[in-house]
Amino acid sequence: MQQSIGIGLAGLGNVGAGVFKHLQANRTLLRERLGLDLEVRRIAVRDSARRASEGFPSALLTENWRELVEDPSVQIVVEVMGRREESLALILESIARKKIVVTANKALLAEHGREIFEAATKYGVPVFYEAAVGGGIPIIKALREALIGNHIISIHGIINGTSNYILTRMQEAGLSFPAALAEAQAAGYAEPDPAFDVNGWDAAHKAIILASLAYGFWVPTDKIFVEGIENLTSADFRFARQLGYGIKLLGIIKATSSTPGSEIEVRVHPTLVPEKHVLASVNGVFNAIAVHGNVVGETLFYGRGAGQDPTSSAILCDIAEAAEALANPRRNLGFMPHGLYGCCKPLDNILSEYYLRLCVEDRPGVIAKISGILGELQIGISSIFQPEADEEGSTVPLVMMLHTATHAQMRTALERIGALDCVCKPPQMIRAEHFS
Amino acid sequence: MQQSIGIGLAGLGNVGAGVFKHLQANRTLLRERLGLDLEVRRIAVRDSARRASEGFPSALLTENWRELVEDPSVQIVVEVMGRREESLALILESIARKKIVVTANKALLAEHGREIFEAATKYGVPVFYEAAVGGGIPIIKALREALIGNHIISIHGIINGTSNYILTRMQEAGLSFPAALAEAQAAGYAEPDPAFDVNGWDAAHKAIILASLAYGFWVPTDKIFVEGIENLTSADFRFARQLGYGIKLLGIIKATSSTPGSEIEVRVHPTLVPEKHVLASVNGVFNAIAVHGNVVGETLFYGRGAGQDPTSSAILCDIAEAAEALANPRRNLGFMPHGLYGCCKPLDNILSEYYLRLCVEDRPGVIAKISGILGELQIGISSIFQPEADEEGSTVPLVMMLHTATHAQMRTALERIGALDCVCKPPQMIRAEHFS
Repeated sequence: MQQSIGIGLAGLGNVGAGVFKHLQANRTLLRERLGLDLEVRRIAVRDSARRASEGFPSALLTENWRELVEDPSVQIVVEVMGRREESLALILESIARKKIVVTANKALLAEHGREIFEAATKYGVPVFYEAAVGGGIPIIKALREALIGNHIISIHGIINGTSNYILTRMQEAGLSFPAALAEAQAAGYAEPDPAFDVNGWDAAHKAIILASLAYGFWVPTDKIFVEGIENLTSADFRFARQLGYGIKLLGIIKATSSTPGSEIEVRVHPTLVPEKHVLASVNGVFNAIAVHGNVVGETLFYGRGAGQDPTSSAILCDIAEAAEALANPRRNLGFMPHGLYGCCKPLDNILSEYYLRLCVEDRPGVIAKISGILGELQIGISSIFQPEADEEGSTVPLVMMLHTATHAQMRTALERIGALDCVCKPPQMIRAEHFS
Repeated sequence: MQQSIGIGLAGLGNVGAGVFKHLQANRTLLRERLGLDLEVRRIAVRDSARRASEGFPSALLTENWRELVEDPSVQIVVEVMGRREESLALILESIARKKIVVTANKALLAEHGREIFEAATKYGVPVFYEAAVGGGIPIIKALREALIGNHIISIHGIINGTSNYILTRMQEAGLSFPAALAEAQAAGYAEPDPAFDVNGWDAAHKAIILASLAYGFWVPTDKIFVEGIENLTSADFRFARQLGYGIKLLGIIKATSSTPGSEIEVRVHPTLVPEKHVLASVNGVFNAIAVHGNVVGETLFYGRGAGQDPTSSAILCDIAEAAEALANPRRNLGFMPHGLYGCCKPLDNILSEYYLRLCVEDRPGVIAKISGILGELQIGISSIFQPEADEEGSTVPLVMMLHTATHAQMRTALERIGALDCVCKPPQMIRAEHFS
């Protein structure tokens, strides 16, 4: 007789319904592989009458999540409500009752990770969150376990499928940002309110989780740099391609040196990626995360970053791990804090390379003025090119690739260049990565 | 005070020396992340005087691996000797003494996996082998844990770096097989005796391990199909590219249906891969494994498949897992056998698509004869093309892409086509995959 483990499912939206479906469909397989039987014993929903009418077993349904947490037959609580205060209360209450928690709630972890894991440590209860980053890609397990012997030198991730779909369409079909966004919404890849996906903050929450796991402390949300994709134009994609780059929204996490103890940086922004780098060919709603460790070298993990099924796959992994941890307590509760790093580099000091697109007057002396400002600020120019102008007129585009400079240097440069009479519009600046 | 765990390192070749080096270098990091201190307490070598003179601590060295296994302060035995009988004896003896085993020995696992895990089950001792497949890529952990809720529909892996380097050079530089092999040997990517790498059997051992893990039984070596890369010509690469394909040595593992319980197939052979598929752009010594699960969909894992450092990264992961398992016994000992699958499809029944290159007489009626034979055997032709001939003469190349047919059908077709008067050399046949 195999032991049966009771699961409480808090939330029956897209992801919750997927978890329920796949737990049923692959139950025998899971039992054989795990040596334990997994049984959903309680489901917290908003509208139990409606859910019962859809075929979910009415005996399991409750509209009060506290009933689920208080049910002694529930040993694992799966939080897929995706809310803030309510989800936090559910998780903390579950931990206090020594129920293992599985959650996909990235915003909550990014903002309350420290608090959640302090409670987890106090009660000795694991919290698992494989589905919070990268959908079905097992990147949490990779960082927490597979690469445990590695100092993480850098992580570069395409970790928001919606924005990657939009950027792919801008790149491949030459669409404007609004047109690509509308297409993503029509295809169901973007929410009616797409703010969190396109302003970079969904990716930022995920980057915070990855960085925290890699460096052993919860990175504060105000220590990271975040810029969205709203201001990219189809001209930028065209010019970037002429220079040999694609443009991706990347979460970038770096340690200053290749040994433990260094400062770290966390940022999310549109980034020029060399066309030959594998991240440049990750298209549509797919996610990919490149991890560079000081022992393993370059690795890459690729898959669907969102959606009912991939997210369910990650949650099934966590449930299996939770079931095993119920029988055998474990040292690592999902996050092992330590003080080997613990310092975020001031944002002004972050180094990057840059693409700069200017709209300038079509007359001699303009490049001299602009390059003079860059020279005074010690910012090197690696190339300058003047693309064919879209329209007839007295202004022309001017594109430059700049060598490494700090954010602070570039801010000053942009202010001074933007103030020149011969520069007609605010400069467009996009960071570039070369994966040396 | 953190608990200290004793490690016995059996073997101090390239991989063993790497494990020793990185355990020292990242010891503090591992201790913080793991909550345990890892200490090498014994090292079995062939020549201890030489190793001592190289700076390895002489107090730890022994030329008798039994001393290491019998040392009561050694709790984890890391087998990186890479031999057969001796490695098997060491592993079985370690298990009988309740020491957790970590091994990178793919040939041994592929041939004796069943025996090793029967012993592991008898004594309740885990055996870990992340380094046996894909070097630093955590594919074992992905299949064993991350994708535990998935029925595995297929695995397509580039899992031999040496052959991938050779194929990359044949494709990119137009080299012949012997020239590309010589280059790989000069670069240190191929052994002086490259047989196991180029005849497909190194990849086959890895494919057996992946298939066994995915389907819950140790796949017998005589139930798989293996073909090496020795007979590929630069002309095949040229013609394949004209048709939109690259050529890769793939390990292919498939279930017949998309639900548990189906027959499976395991094979290793040169394969035409559509240029747009991500596996086609995995070049040089890199490995990549695409896993299609019935919940997660498509995923891909990429990294360095061999070498001291990537292999060490995988072994450090296993050592950390072993250390945790020492404190907390676990249900999954590294392989969970079950009977949900357990049947390999007869090799004659394996379905594939095919590329066929013939050398034929340059006269009318030839295509009619060949397509007549294929038609009688119910093998569909998807395209025929006649490339520019290399040389003047009375014979010309003829290339065909064929629809799905069984191995048995194709064998008959090749016999009959090869016997035609108008066909001047033995036909060249390469399988193709379309990742539908």
